[in-house]
Amino acid sequence: MNRSLYPASCPPIVHIPTCIVMVGLPARGKTYVSRKLTRYLNWIGVNTKVFNLGEYRRKIAGAHCKHSFFDPNNTDGMSVREKCAELALEDITKWLNDIGQVAIFDATNTTRARRKKVTTHLKENGFKEFFVESICDDDEIIQSNIVEVKVNSPDYQGVNPEEACQDFLSRISHYKKFYEPISLEHDHNLPFLKVIDGGKRFFMNRVEGYLQSRVVYYIMNLHITPRAIYLSRHGESFMNQEGRIGGDSDLSPNGVEYSKVLGKFVKDEMPADLKVWISEKKRTKQTAKYIERPIEQWKAVNEIDAGVCEGMTYEEIQEKFPDAFARRDEDKFHYRYARGESYEDLVARLEPVIMELERQHNVLVICHQAVARCLLAYFLDHNSEELPYLRVPLHTVIKLTPVAYGCRVEKFDLHVPAVNTHREKPKNVSVNRSAEDALVTVPEHN
Amino acid sequence: MNRSLYPASCPPIVHIPTCIVMVGLPARGKTYVSRKLTRYLNWIGVNTKVFNLGEYRRKIAGAHCKHSFFDPNNTDGMSVREKCAELALEDITKWLNDIGQVAIFDATNTTRARRKKVTTHLKENGFKEFFVESICDDDEIIQSNIVEVKVNSPDYQGVNPEEACQDFLSRISHYKKFYEPISLEHDHNLPFLKVIDGGKRFFMNRVEGYLQSRVVYYIMNLHITPRAIYLSRHGESFMNQEGRIGGDSDLSPNGVEYSKVLGKFVKDEMPADLKVWISEKKRTKQTAKYIERPIEQWKAVNEIDAGVCEGMTYEEIQEKFPDAFARRDEDKFHYRYARGESYEDLVARLEPVIMELERQHNVLVICHQAVARCLLAYFLDHNSEELPYLRVPLHTVIKLTPVAYGCRVEKFDLHVPAVNTHREKPKNVSVNRSAEDALVTVPEHN
Repeated sequence: MNRSLYPASCPPIVHIPTCIVMVGLPARGKTYVSRKLTRYLNWIGVNTKVFNLGEYRRKIAGAHCKHSFFDPNNTDGMSVREKCAELALEDITKWLNDIGQVAIFDATNTTRARRKKVTTHLKENGFKEFFVESICDDDEIIQSNIVEVKVNSPDYQGVNPEEACQDFLSRISHYKKFYEPISLEHDHNLPFLKVIDGGKRFFMNRVEGYLQSRVVYYIMNLHITPRAIYLSRHGESFMNQEGRIGGDSDLSPNGVEYSKVLGKFVKDEMPADLKVWISEKKRTKQTAKYIERPIEQWKAVNEIDAGVCEGMTYEEIQEKFPDAFARRDEDKFHYRYARGESYEDLVARLEPVIMELERQHNVLVICHQAVARCLLAYFLDHNSEELPYLRVPLHTVIKLTPVAYGCRVEKFDLHVPAVNTHREKPKNVSVNRSAEDALVTVPEHN
Repeated sequence: MNRSLYPASCPPIVHIPTCIVMVGLPARGKTYVSRKLTRYLNWIGVNTKVFNLGEYRRKIAGAHCKHSFFDPNNTDGMSVREKCAELALEDITKWLNDIGQVAIFDATNTTRARRKKVTTHLKENGFKEFFVESICDDDEIIQSNIVEVKVNSPDYQGVNPEEACQDFLSRISHYKKFYEPISLEHDHNLPFLKVIDGGKRFFMNRVEGYLQSRVVYYIMNLHITPRAIYLSRHGESFMNQEGRIGGDSDLSPNGVEYSKVLGKFVKDEMPADLKVWISEKKRTKQTAKYIERPIEQWKAVNEIDAGVCEGMTYEEIQEKFPDAFARRDEDKFHYRYARGESYEDLVARLEPVIMELERQHNVLVICHQAVARCLLAYFLDHNSEELPYLRVPLHTVIKLTPVAYGCRVEKFDLHVPAVNTHREKPKNVSVNRSAEDALVTVPEHN
């Protein structure tokens, strides 16, 4: 997700380009944290990129390096790895001097000498540094990480899983011989976070600035217990049928039918410990009517505020505000409705919702089209151009299951008729376009 | 601030009543953290109360206990202190079974035996526990704490400062003999946060749930470096002169004059490293025009959204929505303007601003009447009934300086004429009142 702008709802998060340096033995979840953090920071508008050392190694030394490659006594291996680290640091420097705000250096960085080099390089270039070390002695977590992620990694394509697992354990043991964890004795001036045993414990030292404090809070709230997040829009409303946006109308008969079907679907298909979040709008409350699970209202998941356009059809908006309508089509993510919100505002408003979704277990969010788009963009890593056009049809449950480094998506059409509310980006976004050109993608309505 | 309701903008923060148990030697900032945390939690709508063991001791044993009272070999002293702890726990239990959501037990709790008793008691009553231990070996911090706070405490009224300081150091040494810090070896199942050397380092273990995660994040963002926070409303606007609320109008000539005077006042009176925050409204940007300091825009400090009443005079609101106007007067904090916000919503919106103000050093916030009221209520501990009626006149700079457990307030009237925009709560708040009764407290305007 490339956005150089920060959300307009808060001051700039990053004043000085920052490199987040991962530290830890293989299979300690460094890549998991790096990727999630990247997704989160990009979503809140901080231009962030991961630099994974493994990818450099595969490019230079090929995909299949046996564990002996990682033996510190293997001088050839060592010199290739040294070279890779240099290339990665070069790329990080280019990125942070260009449009990047945060670079995440996803590598083991297990020796003090290596970290010293990184620190010196970053200082010379005027970048800030923040270390995140993952320490884990819980064999269960390590084993499941190896089985779920490492065995399927490009390093072991075509290798049988048991052999891959054995080789990987040997690789870890090479690193263990020379591992020097970050310690207060040597590193008391270094800003760092230690994540211990997959988030049971944390230690942090000299965390400073807004970015670091957000990073710590985000990582603190992550968990790796399996669970699912379900998203649904409210059932069809009378205003949906009329092609009107916003407002606070009741469910149509179709919408009421959906609420009943959804109640049954929750009962049959969703976990017993499910929590349900709704917005403050009547149509989400009515949609949750037949769900027998605890229900909580969040103002933060209310639909995007269309300001002066609330309750209008697209035809009416085109008639009353043709220029604004065209400007919105031109840059839908940043366009703010007069006296209302932009998608960018909405992302800022939904940030606490994402943070809380990370902390929670099984949750069903009954929300609205624009809100669902923002949440989906976070989980599925869509950029700010794609975000406002993501398809979230009515009467469909979207199930997100965290797997490895991403999310599995399943869509369940509950087969209750509903109007289509998705308006594609029209080809002509000029303020001089005709009404016909402006309205060509408006879906059918009453 | 007594509010049993949580901010409507998020789901309930506290599901199970929780006791936050402080741990640490005397003069480690336990009371400072307890009071700040209480102020913060109450402000975000979590009903919280501190139970300070020293106050129980002073009630039972009188104000002047010499250090020998705290000697563990003093069996009389020990039995009084034991009794006090029991009384405090009883009161905590009553509070949490009544309207309380969080109790903060502000005591040393330095031995495992004492903490075990607390834990057992809380478990028996079905409450959650969370430990916050403050560890500090930085003599400078300890010394300044003793001088700033302890010497002025009721324990040493009428005692000369040097003597008080000596006695207090002896008191600490009694505690040191038996201090058993929380340790992973003995307490690995306990949810706790260790604050080390006044916030340079933190260790946290098994933090779970939204409340604990917020508490940790809040304490992480605190600092004790001296600084000042300045608040000012924008200069007088044309709509102020007309007695209209909300909107986005320009500064009046008076307002422009204020912006010039404020520019000079900042130059002469405020620190060089000052940051200035403004809202997205033109009138705050224009007010900052002559300030030569870095300026950042926050959407979050925009004025309360008056929804359908935006841009109206109170007379017009009374004419068009007399019932709503009366209901707002009846409960101004919770009343939400149709398609707009309540003060309660505003507090939720301002929460990140408060968090960031805690993290920052010298800041001037140029904002709006309702926003300034919410911020002031946080710093000066006003409850939700007082909050919407706090006086924040135009063309006045309010300086807040953190001292000991609170804030010193200074008001600087910059002597530029402006209309009064403060409307007192009228006596008659009934929906059947006359227009005259409804408008009796409306300030003069064009």
